[in-house]
Amino acid sequence: MIYLDHNASSPLDERVEEAIRPYQNKFFGNPSSLHRHGRLCRDAINRARAQVAQLVGAQPSQIVFTSGGTEANNLAIQGWAAAHPSGIVVAGATEHPSVIEPLEVLARRGKPIARIAVDASGMIHPANLRTMVNDRKALVSIMLANNETGVIQDCKALAQALEGTEAVLHTDAVQAVGKIPVNFEQLGGGLMTLSGHKIGAPQGIGALVIGPGIRLEPLLYGGGQESGLRAGTENVAAIVGFGKAAELARIELAERRERLLRLRDRLEHRLNRLAGTTIFAQNAPRLCNTVQFGVSGIDGETLVMFLDRAGIALSSGSACASGGGEPSPVLTAMGIPAELAKSAVRVSLGPGNTEKDIDRLIEVLTQLHPRHAQVA
Amino acid sequence: MIYLDHNASSPLDERVEEAIRPYQNKFFGNPSSLHRHGRLCRDAINRARAQVAQLVGAQPSQIVFTSGGTEANNLAIQGWAAAHPSGIVVAGATEHPSVIEPLEVLARRGKPIARIAVDASGMIHPANLRTMVNDRKALVSIMLANNETGVIQDCKALAQALEGTEAVLHTDAVQAVGKIPVNFEQLGGGLMTLSGHKIGAPQGIGALVIGPGIRLEPLLYGGGQESGLRAGTENVAAIVGFGKAAELARIELAERRERLLRLRDRLEHRLNRLAGTTIFAQNAPRLCNTVQFGVSGIDGETLVMFLDRAGIALSSGSACASGGGEPSPVLTAMGIPAELAKSAVRVSLGPGNTEKDIDRLIEVLTQLHPRHAQVA
Repeated sequence: MIYLDHNASSPLDERVEEAIRPYQNKFFGNPSSLHRHGRLCRDAINRARAQVAQLVGAQPSQIVFTSGGTEANNLAIQGWAAAHPSGIVVAGATEHPSVIEPLEVLARRGKPIARIAVDASGMIHPANLRTMVNDRKALVSIMLANNETGVIQDCKALAQALEGTEAVLHTDAVQAVGKIPVNFEQLGGGLMTLSGHKIGAPQGIGALVIGPGIRLEPLLYGGGQESGLRAGTENVAAIVGFGKAAELARIELAERRERLLRLRDRLEHRLNRLAGTTIFAQNAPRLCNTVQFGVSGIDGETLVMFLDRAGIALSSGSACASGGGEPSPVLTAMGIPAELAKSAVRVSLGPGNTEKDIDRLIEVLTQLHPRHAQVA
Repeated sequence: MIYLDHNASSPLDERVEEAIRPYQNKFFGNPSSLHRHGRLCRDAINRARAQVAQLVGAQPSQIVFTSGGTEANNLAIQGWAAAHPSGIVVAGATEHPSVIEPLEVLARRGKPIARIAVDASGMIHPANLRTMVNDRKALVSIMLANNETGVIQDCKALAQALEGTEAVLHTDAVQAVGKIPVNFEQLGGGLMTLSGHKIGAPQGIGALVIGPGIRLEPLLYGGGQESGLRAGTENVAAIVGFGKAAELARIELAERRERLLRLRDRLEHRLNRLAGTTIFAQNAPRLCNTVQFGVSGIDGETLVMFLDRAGIALSSGSACASGGGEPSPVLTAMGIPAELAKSAVRVSLGPGNTEKDIDRLIEVLTQLHPRHAQVA
């Protein structure tokens, strides 16, 4: 099986697996326990906290571990909204369901919310954001890199546009981290969501980075873990793995980018030569590993199933929204017509991929063409 | 190190570790993806769901996986409260912080709450519960087995006392499962919290069992996973591990109980012969693996540190509440005087323990006595 769906979930890096193992079967324990087992777990968590902080240029004390990106996004949005009853929550038009859904729940409960439009490339304009926020107390949630198109927002410019306002910028950096340099301070130093399983750590671990003076109500109450912001026995092994994966992502960033970019360029070059193929947001700044494209006249989910039978795994868009039959809301927000948007599939490359994988994908897509002509 | 703190966290069972491994490095993927990788993960989750359901006599469709017991308790309490604005939330006096804290947050937000007293043995009387609930729409949260004392509530009688009322019983079965037979239907079929890492599964996984017709508002919104009740990429490996651990706990229940009970009885027999030692709730029905006791004149946390230096790991009470210096709220609720409550330490036995561990603990406690006499 050729796996081209790393934005959905990436395999566990074997060096991370090795780092985790002792915390599964040897140094097990509850980090809240006072004895040696507990203290060893506590120390391991603190090391991981420093590793994750370093990846994004934050302070270890600013890292709150969560069960993943979805929980971190929910904590940012629901937590800020609960702590700021008079504030408005603003999100980009192409955000992940774990931002959009909490926003819609807040709206149903009477909270003021707003969505900020993107242009045809999927970009948000800083001036538009500034105008929308104006002098309101606001949380602004914008993803650094889009999970479907790979479009990279200029969050630094967006953070600058918010300077001097009462707005806090929440950056969903789940897809960006490990693929581009990410600096918490440069992105406003407000809130930032991270996820482990997109960078070679296990599933079930993420973090919210919380800047100084930002007040949030917790979602989970109990034993007072994570400075009272996230109760529940810490998932020690997963946290250790997240730390190790963060360290590797930091050290290997340039090398990984270069390798992925070479593969992506090879893929795009060949896709551009296939008739009836559209690469979405092709001219926008995009992640080194992500190509979303459509083959005209073929439904994306049909193409996913066809490629699956040919031994190639990719997604028709966001894994979190698959199976719905609706065109991608991300592409719709960019003004892509429904018919074309429905044809979208997403290749997201990762550590195991090679040129052979790209060539095989192109080969299968080429075989598809006669069939495609039949269908169209 | 002799590890006697299994109620805080239990080591990963090596058979569980084996079951997990393929889902870490081979069948990785996002269960929401439509391709083969995704479907394999989806199938694995469904198998695990059936295994967990079978352990407690529930239907697979009633299992909602969470990041652990704390999240499940919060989902039960906050989720029910949000869906029933006019309802009251009632909890026992000796509940876990992950029940008490959400309750107190609800109270601060103006929600009616109540606590129901326990007797000197830590037991709740069904008639008292019935009187308190009366004809109100209520959620009643009561733990099946206490994490500190090991006291087993007669939740079956409590469920019967609630029959014909508008109350839903939420059973926190985190410490009970794997140590006593647990049947969701017999306990009212309302809500039940389970945790993985207390039964040999990894940390970071738990479940809420949700009976028919029980409405809850989710805590985490996003990709619609877990029937829309718990968003976030499923933690596939941990879920597979939870399933395997549940299966083993079901098959080996009788054998494990018998072995642990023999060890516990040996410990209690010897503790009873040590001067100045009190076993808490000694005559109440208690878990086969838990003994909470105090040595008069010695502070529990001091004793934990002393035993730690002697290579024995145990807790002074709940790991989730350690380090506070306050007497255990559980013992306080049972009417134990503060001085005696402060002396409490908890032994919680698990799969690796042997008679030699018990004998070593008693040996070290015996050595303590001259020192104890000095301190007192």
